[in-house]
Amino acid sequence: MRLHSPDDLRALVEDYLGELALSPELGGLEDAVRYPLESGGKRIRPVLSLAVGEAAGAEPELCLPAAAAIELVHTFSLVHDDLPALDDDDERRGRPSAHVAFGEAAALLAGDALLAEAFRLALSYPTPAVGRELAKATLGMIAGQYLDVTGSGSDLAELHRLKTGSLFSASVGVALWAAEVPEREQQPWRAFGDELGLLFQIVDDVLDGDGYAASHGVDGARTLADEAASRAQERLDAVPADTSVLVELVAGLASRTA
Amino acid sequence: MRLHSPDDLRALVEDYLGELALSPELGGLEDAVRYPLESGGKRIRPVLSLAVGEAAGAEPELCLPAAAAIELVHTFSLVHDDLPALDDDDERRGRPSAHVAFGEAAALLAGDALLAEAFRLALSYPTPAVGRELAKATLGMIAGQYLDVTGSGSDLAELHRLKTGSLFSASVGVALWAAEVPEREQQPWRAFGDELGLLFQIVDDVLDGDGYAASHGVDGARTLADEAASRAQERLDAVPADTSVLVELVAGLASRTA
Repeated sequence: MRLHSPDDLRALVEDYLGELALSPELGGLEDAVRYPLESGGKRIRPVLSLAVGEAAGAEPELCLPAAAAIELVHTFSLVHDDLPALDDDDERRGRPSAHVAFGEAAALLAGDALLAEAFRLALSYPTPAVGRELAKATLGMIAGQYLDVTGSGSDLAELHRLKTGSLFSASVGVALWAAEVPEREQQPWRAFGDELGLLFQIVDDVLDGDGYAASHGVDGARTLADEAASRAQERLDAVPADTSVLVELVAGLASRTA
Repeated sequence: MRLHSPDDLRALVEDYLGELALSPELGGLEDAVRYPLESGGKRIRPVLSLAVGEAAGAEPELCLPAAAAIELVHTFSLVHDDLPALDDDDERRGRPSAHVAFGEAAALLAGDALLAEAFRLALSYPTPAVGRELAKATLGMIAGQYLDVTGSGSDLAELHRLKTGSLFSASVGVALWAAEVPEREQQPWRAFGDELGLLFQIVDDVLDGDGYAASHGVDGARTLADEAASRAQERLDAVPADTSVLVELVAGLASRTA
């Protein structure tokens, strides 16, 4: 079987999100729900889901609802984090953030709706395991955001494990369930996902000059990133499948500059 | 089988919510999540779930996670609705609302966590149908709140069907799935739930002097409430089960004064 490239997978994600049928009840709120979804992020998480699913033998089409659910949870968190009550960011990816474009009330409710729509997608599978994975990750992510805004997180690694790592791990997890990989065979895949989340966060901090870059210096953080990338590759070696696209994703995450 | 009274069911709900194990990751956010859950509401929705489940042959213990999930979604909506960006209410049931007690950031995140915890509970069942019911209802409720805050709802009945009716209908629906009532046998139960949501809303408006009481006058609204109660009782007559406790719930909702 010829695997899709990361670019192909990203195009599939964009198409799926662009044509995603939201709940008809949303009515006038739909614009505020769709707006932050259309902001052209890198779609790293859903691409990871599709790549894991395909490596595990599932067509991308089968994993798309689960992958999109992950992206919706990520988008929900951005919309709420940007609100004045949290980070108070007026811009997101070069555009006015949702509350600037639609007002605070609509942005708050749009965030809520994105989270509920994510579960609707995750619950389109015959097994509740996809939704369970999503709920656990969402709770971890929210807890991480709480540590971040309150400054009560004494441990940077724990904060990032929750805030970023939860959803990366779930990107792998939902794909494994969607692809019907038996639980007893999931461990090596999941070990890979955990390292990938850490890698993403360290590189993010290097690019932003905060977090790991602040605590370990840029060179120190680069070293940590290289080590996480090496471990991620090692974890892939333990996965009995064609992981060539996942290898490519690791390399892309390690060397990204934006 | 001797059925539990509404008061007994409410006590079961209170005990369950009081001892509910939240996700350990929540850490310092747990207090802000628990606070609005402990505010001693009437627990009408989860009691309805348990009563429907028991009438359908399921022990209350089996339906408690689903019933609690409904109450958590209701509580999530109250926490977010009270925020300054929406209704800006400083009090809720005689206590400071969550954002007054814990700050806006924690209240926003606690609302998010309540919604995610609700799905975690709904996903504890072997079937994804409980979670599907919850997702649909949550989206309807959010859409209703959007119509309410924007004043864009030209149709009062539609606004209430979404904002209040969605979760009442789901209170019945999740219990039917938890009790494993086959889909082909659910219709009469669901027709009952729809009428009950309308009854609840009209009586609410009579007590608050707004909504249906404003549009139809207090006497007109009382008449509408009596008609909804009669229809709810008729729907119960079509349910092949001991619905005596549900009859009692209808009477209680129709005559409530707070």
